[in-house]
Formats: sequence, structure tokens, C-alpha cells
Amino acid sequence: MFVELGISARHVHLSRGDIDILFGKEYQLTVFKDLKQLGQYAANEKVEVIGPKGSFETVRILGPERKKSQVELSASDCIKIGVPVVLRDSGDHIDTPGVKLVGPKGSIELTGGVMVASRHMHVSTETADKEDIKNGELLCAKIPGDREVIFGNVLARVDATFVDELHLDTDEANASFVKNNQKVDVYKCQK
Amino acid sequence: MFVELGISARHVHLSRGDIDILFGKEYQLTVFKDLKQLGQYAANEKVEVIGPKGSFETVRILGPERKKSQVELSASDCIKIGVPVVLRDSGDHIDTPGVKLVGPKGSIELTGGVMVASRHMHVSTETADKEDIKNGELLCAKIPGDREVIFGNVLARVDATFVDELHLDTDEANASFVKNNQKVDVYKCQK
Repeated sequence: MFVELGISARHVHLSRGDIDILFGKEYQLTVFKDLKQLGQYAANEKVEVIGPKGSFETVRILGPERKKSQVELSASDCIKIGVPVVLRDSGDHIDTPGVKLVGPKGSIELTGGVMVASRHMHVSTETADKEDIKNGELLCAKIPGDREVIFGNVLARVDATFVDELHLDTDEANASFVKNNQKVDVYKCQK
Repeated sequence: MFVELGISARHVHLSRGDIDILFGKEYQLTVFKDLKQLGQYAANEKVEVIGPKGSFETVRILGPERKKSQVELSASDCIKIGVPVVLRDSGDHIDTPGVKLVGPKGSIELTGGVMVASRHMHVSTETADKEDIKNGELLCAKIPGDREVIFGNVLARVDATFVDELHLDTDEANASFVKNNQKVDVYKCQK
């Protein structure tokens, strides 16, 4: 099946409590741009992400609020600011490193939640049924062209609210020259 | 076959004339570390590489001297300093962008020679014969693990002076979590 690609640049998800600290009590994030997944948006707000060896001054926040703050970086990003490269599925914060976040009203030392996110595909229930894809299944995605790459271990995340979309990060996009919104062939890997 | 990987970070090759300008007339590059390929070395000398949107202050020179200067960047690097991302086989400077190079004794505006280098494998004549690999053939390389990737279009460069070695750049390494010196399975791609 051909699935639209969204390239994830470094970004931050924030908890209610952390928004209070970084932007002020009861501050509400504002929508810069709606994302493809229902209810998800890129916010106008940005924070500085500081690691032991460097920082990124303006990292966009993606809304809505989450239960726990999470910082998604590429491996290149991690190396640049001196944070361990730890691959995790979104939401899994076990043994993840932290960073310092600085907002206009305050700062926080996160003790975890920094990750390189596993490549994954958001799969609608309809597509999952049609293509016989189970939640948690690992798929393959082929990027054709001069820098042809087949990505394995593409985690299928099936949910009734999801719109079909493949997510790769900037390292993966730069390694394969795939473009944002490109339609990518995703399929069950051959054994 | 399993082939040792060398990860190429951004680097510069310089012509004799450009060394004269950047480091002084008849200056000789000095060896920091020998590389795996015969006669190739990382030099102690570094230059600043300046693009329209940013620069890298200390980019290592790889010796020996070349006929034409060449700057090898990752796609991430190109984006960061505002240089077009142009994929080329090493030595092919047709329609490549330029950058400014600054050394201790002078600077140059290169009019071309900046590239993202095609992934490739240096193949010894012995291995080429044994594995029936032709110069210019495109191979596949599989990186196992959590970030499994199969790289297609791995250009085989066969030469009697070559030592078997797969070269990927930092974007490709970060996208697949492959490590420097890791033994990688390189094989004829299945159609």
C-alpha cells in the first residue's frame, strides 16, 4: 500500500504541569498548524532544549498536552547536544535520558523522556482490517530513487482515530532523500 | 559477504593550488591518522566550510592531495549551512554547488565540488573476482537491529589498490544505528 510520509523534525510534547512552569500557570498552547493525525497540532510555542554539550534554541511544541513531557530528537541531534541516543516507542520513557527545557517563564530539568522515536506508521482501523495489519506488527517501507532504502521495523500503530501516515525522522529522510508528503510503499516484510 | 564499515563524516579533499592558498605556498599536509585505503589519511589540518546560511568551523582535510578540491557533506550538513543537496559519485563535479573555504593563510570561493557522496564499497580485485562483482555495479547492504535498514544503490568501486570497505555517511549511520568498523552484509540485490 502507498502511504503518505510525514517527516518528524525534533519536537517537544509537554504535560500540563510543565506548561505551567515554562509558559505560566494555565497558559494555553496556540495552534500554528494542524497535523494530519486528528487533534494533533504544531503549536506556535517553542522552547530551548539544552543538553550537556549544546542546545537547540527554538524547538517546536506539538499539542495537545500529554500526560508526560517527551522530547523527540534525531540521533544526529542527540550527538550534537551530548545526550545518549536511546530508541523508544513514543510514550515509553523507561531508561530514557533527560534534558533541560527553557521557556519564557521558567525552566525544567527533565529526568527522562528524551528519545529517538521508533519509525512507525499510524494505521486506521479500516486499513488494518483491509491489509490484515495487527497493532504492534513490524512492517517494511521502501524508498526508491538514487538513495534507495528499505526501512525495516516500521511499527504499526493501529487506532480508530488514526489517519494512515508513515513517520520517519530527519536522519532517516536525509539518508534516503525521501520528501515530506511523498507516497511510500509500506508492506509486510518478506521473511 | 561481510565487509567492514567506515562512516564518513564531513571532510574536504584539497588540490595543490588550494592548499597553497589556504595554508601557504608549498605547505605539506601532515598525517593525523592513516585510513584503511592505501595511502589515504586524515590530516591534522582543518578548514572552515562556509555556506549561505551557516558554517562548520573545523572540517578535517583528508589527504593526499587531489586534482580538484572536493567537499563531502551529509544532507543534514548541506541543509544546515544552506547548500543544495546534490548526490554525486566522488570525483564527479558536474553541476555541484560551491562553498567558501577558510584556512589559516587565506580563503577560496569554490565554484563547485560540494556533494553528498554516493554510498559505495571499495572492492579489492581479489574480492571482485571471487564474488563476481563488476566495477560500477550496484549492491545492497543490510544493517540488522532495532533500526534495520537495507541500503540499495551501493556503488561497487573495484581497484587493485583497494581494501574491502563499505562507506556510508553520518546520516545513513544515524538512520540505521550502524557503528563504525561494524561488519556489514553486502550482497547482490535481489530483483
